Amino acid sequence: MLLPEEPAILEVRHAVRRWLVQHCPGGVVAVALSGGADSLALTAAAAAEARTVRALVVDHRLQTGSADVAQEAAARARALGCVSAEVLGVDVTGSGGLEAAARDARYRALDSARRSDPVLLGHTLDDQAETVLLGLARGSGGRSIWGMSAYDSPWGRPLLGVRRAVTHQACSELGLLPHEDPHNASPDFTRVRLRTEVLPLLEDVLGGGVAGALARTGEQLREEGAVLDSAADTVGARAVVDGELDVAALADVAPPIRRRVLRTWLLAAGARALGDKQLRAVDDLVVQWRGQGPVAVGGGTPDARLVVCRRRGRLNVGLDDRRRV
Amino acid sequence: MLLPEEPAILEVRHAVRRWLVQHCPGGVVAVALSGGADSLALTAAAAAEARTVRALVVDHRLQTGSADVAQEAAARARALGCVSAEVLGVDVTGSGGLEAAARDARYRALDSARRSDPVLLGHTLDDQAETVLLGLARGSGGRSIWGMSAYDSPWGRPLLGVRRAVTHQACSELGLLPHEDPHNASPDFTRVRLRTEVLPLLEDVLGGGVAGALARTGEQLREEGAVLDSAADTVGARAVVDGELDVAALADVAPPIRRRVLRTWLLAAGARALGDKQLRAVDDLVVQWRGQGPVAVGGGTPDARLVVCRRRGRLNVGLDDRRRV
Repeated sequence: MLLPEEPAILEVRHAVRRWLVQHCPGGVVAVALSGGADSLALTAAAAAEARTVRALVVDHRLQTGSADVAQEAAARARALGCVSAEVLGVDVTGSGGLEAAARDARYRALDSARRSDPVLLGHTLDDQAETVLLGLARGSGGRSIWGMSAYDSPWGRPLLGVRRAVTHQACSELGLLPHEDPHNASPDFTRVRLRTEVLPLLEDVLGGGVAGALARTGEQLREEGAVLDSAADTVGARAVVDGELDVAALADVAPPIRRRVLRTWLLAAGARALGDKQLRAVDDLVVQWRGQGPVAVGGGTPDARLVVCRRRGRLNVGLDDRRRV
Repeated sequence: MLLPEEPAILEVRHAVRRWLVQHCPGGVVAVALSGGADSLALTAAAAAEARTVRALVVDHRLQTGSADVAQEAAARARALGCVSAEVLGVDVTGSGGLEAAARDARYRALDSARRSDPVLLGHTLDDQAETVLLGLARGSGGRSIWGMSAYDSPWGRPLLGVRRAVTHQACSELGLLPHEDPHNASPDFTRVRLRTEVLPLLEDVLGGGVAGALARTGEQLREEGAVLDSAADTVGARAVVDGELDVAALADVAPPIRRRVLRTWLLAAGARALGDKQLRAVDDLVVQWRGQGPVAVGGGTPDARLVVCRRRGRLNVGLDDRRRV
């Protein structure tokens, strides 16, 4: 929490220092800099706290003048003490919407340029809250509701406990004028509408504290999910025999752990777009067995679906060649 | 899901039938009837599906004419085939806001009048979604985010998978005109604003499906939480010795399970208003031990706080008598 006397940049620096102590004691990092307030404050703090900081600036080339914005951000990074600042031009293509395509291109470029260093990202507590709310409301369950991780190698997020207002304040204290990405105000983007419409309304209805509450919930669910994942790994190691699943080894396992075992096994066998419905149908082969036929689990070839069958007390997954039917 | 050909009342009846098979095969139930669409459709379905249904109508006496509304609802219940219909007048008093006080009074009255029967409540999938969103956004973590349970004796909720629109349609099919509680449209109530403002906005931003997603998420988290609770019970049975907690038995336990053990132990010892902050301070006595002093956990007497101390490898909870300090 920001005390009235404490400059915001100190809060940002403390957060970066704690992250470095815990995850990167050697202190050699890259930082992803967009030029916005979050990544600019992060870059300033990292340059002050880490031993060596290389700045990586992605130019998405989606807006006129984006090259100038990127070069300006790189110049700032050097002025703040980064040992280097590299502009990475990317081409945003692909399916799934502009937001997702831009993100994919950005992460690919950062991953190529990072060498063996972790890459610090400027996600704040507010971003975390948006992520959790998005996952919850889309609700395919499970990890969709988890918050982002403070370190998911190579991606480091030191500012997940810092409010966005603090990074803006820190920039102002340092006399840095952040670049305002016009996309951050465009109502075409789901996340922008969550930020500018849904979360303020929720704050109003519930009397405040919503962003912090969402972030805490996401962190807690991530911890709880890891415990269940670990329990499922133990069960899976026992239940999977020659690539098949022994039904008897799953029968007394609690449903959330059993479904995790099934999910991991199916994904390893090549299942794609595995939804809640398919997973429950496979689970029924274990606990509601009444001689059902094969369950399609997504994936396979143009000529044959990937299906799960139960035979002689085991589940096996394979191609259901419809040409031969 | 409602098929175009299937009358809505059949969907409601199926839901009630499934609930009875699973939770009350004897088929003797009470049903809480407000006169609104949800509980009216539930009453009609229960009268058709259960062996014996007694209707319980709570008159909160908060609005002029509420006695007439209650009597009318009771008359409808009898007409629908309930063996009896009783109006329970309550006085809404107490702290924590009108909404909470009315709910407390209602549940107390229903519990007194139910004899030994389960009480069916008309909560729908939409109510479930509101509950999960409320818990998430208030976010003290843990069970606040769980959805309501289909059966938490004596309270049964057969309609948690049924949309509110379906209960309204069912009433219309049966020629029943539901009572519209003016409170259900009052923006003074947090839940009403979630229903009429936040959820529609979320549906708009995310392109639909939010209520179902929230309800699924809540159900899943409830299942996962039960697994972790059960693991914590096992650990707690080993770790609690003469009312004290053996630190060594907790050291290697995963944090979400360890915190559950601590929470259960503290509540049993009389801790009150146990927040995340206190719980983490007690957890630090276990895993971040550096000779800390007593941790206050809420509760105690006017003269002495309830505190947790670590001594000789054990945590104990007791009164910290400040008069003697």
